[in-house]
Amino acid sequence: MTVQSLLNRFSLGGKYLTEPGPSQEDLELIVSAALRAPDHGELTPFRFVVIEGEGRARLADLFESYAKRAGKSEESCKIERARALEVPVSLAVIACIDAYHPLVPAHEQWMCVGGAVTNVLNALHMMGFAGKMLSGGKVRDTEIIEAFCKPGESLVGWIAIGTPSRALTPNKLKWVQGVISHFKS
Amino acid sequence: MTVQSLLNRFSLGGKYLTEPGPSQEDLELIVSAALRAPDHGELTPFRFVVIEGEGRARLADLFESYAKRAGKSEESCKIERARALEVPVSLAVIACIDAYHPLVPAHEQWMCVGGAVTNVLNALHMMGFAGKMLSGGKVRDTEIIEAFCKPGESLVGWIAIGTPSRALTPNKLKWVQGVISHFKS
Repeated sequence: MTVQSLLNRFSLGGKYLTEPGPSQEDLELIVSAALRAPDHGELTPFRFVVIEGEGRARLADLFESYAKRAGKSEESCKIERARALEVPVSLAVIACIDAYHPLVPAHEQWMCVGGAVTNVLNALHMMGFAGKMLSGGKVRDTEIIEAFCKPGESLVGWIAIGTPSRALTPNKLKWVQGVISHFKS
Repeated sequence: MTVQSLLNRFSLGGKYLTEPGPSQEDLELIVSAALRAPDHGELTPFRFVVIEGEGRARLADLFESYAKRAGKSEESCKIERARALEVPVSLAVIACIDAYHPLVPAHEQWMCVGGAVTNVLNALHMMGFAGKMLSGGKVRDTEIIEAFCKPGESLVGWIAIGTPSRALTPNKLKWVQGVISHFKS
């Protein structure tokens, strides 16, 4: 097992994510990887909602309705609608943060959610799929939030998932030297 | 490349982490994996400080001083001191959160920090090492914070790192079924 599988993972946007998406069995493996993210207090402060098949039409309606209410042009509304339909599978990420937990501060719970998303993307990559975490204004829209969340939950966004139709493009290089230093005695 | 490497990673505490720890070259690879965590806006809201060799004695002094100020027993003070010395390498995790960023909410930046920590632990496991993320009261101690952080930074905790001296023990099982559901049309 080599660490290269972590280093050569890059996000890929919806227009390059084609069929097939992961099967139900694949998704259970992917979510199992998410559950291996470090989780102080074993709170599991997240859950996922799978959007595929007919579920995509409902998401398209929600995205279009959001765009209309936001006063976007007819063209932009169509683009928002298409965004929900073009992706084989989306995984809505929902956080359940206990802001008053006596032992685990909220930021550690958010870190666990981030670790879970990271492991979903790692697992997808190792299984030959690709994906991208998406958020933005839609996650703060009341109508969309109500479609996904129970009271007390937060809508984090969606992981767009499919089979990559082109090679992954490395992001702008980040320098290891900038984020590592030594503790001097 | 199989996804099993993500599924069979479990955290291992300091007393089971023996020499050797990762080399400088290993650490750069491990931090490169951390830099591949999804990072909205490419903010890199984290950095790491390597504590090894003589640096461990300084950490031991800080931990002991904290325990004394917290009014702990002499025995507990010794245990805190030993905790810093027993681990081959510790990686302090420091977050740099921009709470007023116009595009990326603070919780998404914390998710990136969590993804980075998750990938450090994933990389360690794939390279034959083991580790555990540690936090607790010490990360809220002014003296310890001042030793690691610049103004505006937060001390998240330490990743204890070494070679595992025993087999990893699976945590309490988490049920995939509890965190996955389908979006109905």
